[in-house]
Amino acid sequence: MRGFAWRTTVSDALKWLDAQTVHLAEETVPLAEAAGRVLAAEVVSHLDVPPFERSMMDGYALGAADTLGASPYNRLTLEVIGQSMPGRAFDGRLAAGQAVRIMTGAPLPQGADAVLPVELVEVQGTQILAQGEVSPGKHVGHLGEDISAGDVVLPASRLLRPQDIGVLASIGLGEVPVVRRPVVQIVVTGNELLPAGSPPQAHKIVDSNGPMLAALVARDGGLVENPGIVPDTPEAILAAIRRQADVVLVSGGSSVGEEDHAPALLIEHGELPIHGIAMRPSSPTGIGRLEGRLVVLLPGNPVSCLCAYDFFAGRAIRTLGGRPADWPYRRASVPLSRKIVSTIGRLDYMRVRLVQRRAEPLAVGGASVLSSTTRADGFVLVPPDSEGYPPGSEVEVFLYD
Amino acid sequence: MRGFAWRTTVSDALKWLDAQTVHLAEETVPLAEAAGRVLAAEVVSHLDVPPFERSMMDGYALGAADTLGASPYNRLTLEVIGQSMPGRAFDGRLAAGQAVRIMTGAPLPQGADAVLPVELVEVQGTQILAQGEVSPGKHVGHLGEDISAGDVVLPASRLLRPQDIGVLASIGLGEVPVVRRPVVQIVVTGNELLPAGSPPQAHKIVDSNGPMLAALVARDGGLVENPGIVPDTPEAILAAIRRQADVVLVSGGSSVGEEDHAPALLIEHGELPIHGIAMRPSSPTGIGRLEGRLVVLLPGNPVSCLCAYDFFAGRAIRTLGGRPADWPYRRASVPLSRKIVSTIGRLDYMRVRLVQRRAEPLAVGGASVLSSTTRADGFVLVPPDSEGYPPGSEVEVFLYD
Repeated sequence: MRGFAWRTTVSDALKWLDAQTVHLAEETVPLAEAAGRVLAAEVVSHLDVPPFERSMMDGYALGAADTLGASPYNRLTLEVIGQSMPGRAFDGRLAAGQAVRIMTGAPLPQGADAVLPVELVEVQGTQILAQGEVSPGKHVGHLGEDISAGDVVLPASRLLRPQDIGVLASIGLGEVPVVRRPVVQIVVTGNELLPAGSPPQAHKIVDSNGPMLAALVARDGGLVENPGIVPDTPEAILAAIRRQADVVLVSGGSSVGEEDHAPALLIEHGELPIHGIAMRPSSPTGIGRLEGRLVVLLPGNPVSCLCAYDFFAGRAIRTLGGRPADWPYRRASVPLSRKIVSTIGRLDYMRVRLVQRRAEPLAVGGASVLSSTTRADGFVLVPPDSEGYPPGSEVEVFLYD
Repeated sequence: MRGFAWRTTVSDALKWLDAQTVHLAEETVPLAEAAGRVLAAEVVSHLDVPPFERSMMDGYALGAADTLGASPYNRLTLEVIGQSMPGRAFDGRLAAGQAVRIMTGAPLPQGADAVLPVELVEVQGTQILAQGEVSPGKHVGHLGEDISAGDVVLPASRLLRPQDIGVLASIGLGEVPVVRRPVVQIVVTGNELLPAGSPPQAHKIVDSNGPMLAALVARDGGLVENPGIVPDTPEAILAAIRRQADVVLVSGGSSVGEEDHAPALLIEHGELPIHGIAMRPSSPTGIGRLEGRLVVLLPGNPVSCLCAYDFFAGRAIRTLGGRPADWPYRRASVPLSRKIVSTIGRLDYMRVRLVQRRAEPLAVGGASVLSSTTRADGFVLVPPDSEGYPPGSEVEVFLYD
């Protein structure tokens, strides 16, 4: 490796990346698959919810005027002329002095304007004795009180929550227009690698980046395609990059050594405007395009791979899928238990544990020690203009969980 | 409806519920499906990662002692006797004065103890001229430096993160023991209900609780079973409750009216220790058991249904699946823009919007207005011992997103 002559700053790399990524076209999915997807367009209701006046209590539908003055000491008699059940309306029309037995959710009959709850009623054969008053509209769910025809129910770009699915169901939708999920090819290169679950072999290690990247892509809403481990030859890597995809993640061989084929392939067949980034780890990251695909070259060292994914690939995948670009990590502001030392000119990604509500930098080896990211609770960033932080400084921790 | 004679407090209901729920038995899943699942047992590595000494740079493997004193002005000559590539080791053993060309990730040959990076070397035929020193161990990834055989790699009950999947792959696992996901039957009752996506019909409304509950259960790690809308008869409801499940959620007919069949069914065939809870909305919630299943009776009003799910059903589903019992909602501490009024003796669940970093209570109708939960950014709780909060009070908002 001859090293990078020049490194792009993280902020310039993000600027280039963000200019490449707008959200994908829409597709239609069944409502039952829409939770967690992103709405492609605002949704306007074409109907009123509820679509009819209905009772909110079990009781008697009647004219409120007929209860005027009713009390336990002045019980007023009404004639019960039928019943209205959920889904089975009473067909007739009430006159003064009449009532219809009604259940919660059942349509309010014509001629009624209120519901007298069952606990204010004594039943005597086909008559009731009202023992209390109700005002007009009382215990009635009004037409369109939840949603009126013409209302914008949900805005475009909404990441659909469980209750949104309920609301979309209530306005009669069986399908929803959502932003298409980006197809992401995960191209893992390295002749020393065995696929996950393989029995051990001399001088080989099991690939950890492929399974980790697949989980990250799924978390960020991408559709994972994985052609398996690709031999370390330019032909095999180029063929893998050319598979159908919106985004290609190439793990390994991203740097400037003799066996690092992917950068040269991008330069020859596409473009590689960003190669070498002023950060640690992940400095041998490349970002470019090939035949319409966004291609991110991720370092093979697993911590670098995770960090470069989080900074660049994950952001692109989230943006293409219409999600917020920002990290899905919760943040906590806590003091540092020990100093963090960094170097002016590069951004540092430091793994930390939370111990007694303080952030403790992990004293671990380099970018090859993936277990440092499973022992860590999160990470702290040191920006390029900082030499680090003394003990006790308040830092923002991005939490992995 | 005659009303509840007595209401259980939320904290007593949670106490009963928590005593009923311990996490389910383990099952084995392929590593590729393990992200987001909960580890059933701690994982101990049976091998060292990496399993051999390897180079961390492209360069030359050699004895560090042979570089002693090397500089651009004192270039030391070594004989190149072969190469070590990723996955293809050099077979021989180095003697003093010898070097082996080596790539990042390739095994360190016997007799070598360091790697001289390629940028410190000039190649002359089969010899190299070393132009710098390296100390023993330099640029070498050591046996077990990431993980040693016998290490606990991840603890039991871990909600598996993407990097955890990478670490599990690296120690040779192809399958993972995880807590079984609870099977949740969603039993939606109500003769006035149409399934999602149905064309409108007079006096009927489209079910919103079923689709909402399905999304909530999936979010909390449960496996959704949905027999469709169940007719409002005791026989049909009992048959639906008896379908195979760990948890049954019955939506609608949970109260004490004539048409509320589920409570009586639980009392007759199982138990219903909790029916009527001192909260608003969701007071007509029931929690019991029937033939080994936990059964939660959720009010049919959609806001009540969401609230009762979140307080009771979701917690049970998360706990059964080995997840943290707490809400998956982020929290924000912000001032109230307007007062909230509550009543001593019950817990209130108030939907709020965040407007200019203040929580604004939504002035919306009752528990039937589901769109209030899609307009809301989250909710505030008012505990039973409080009459509410004045404007400007700092409140904790649980955020829906």
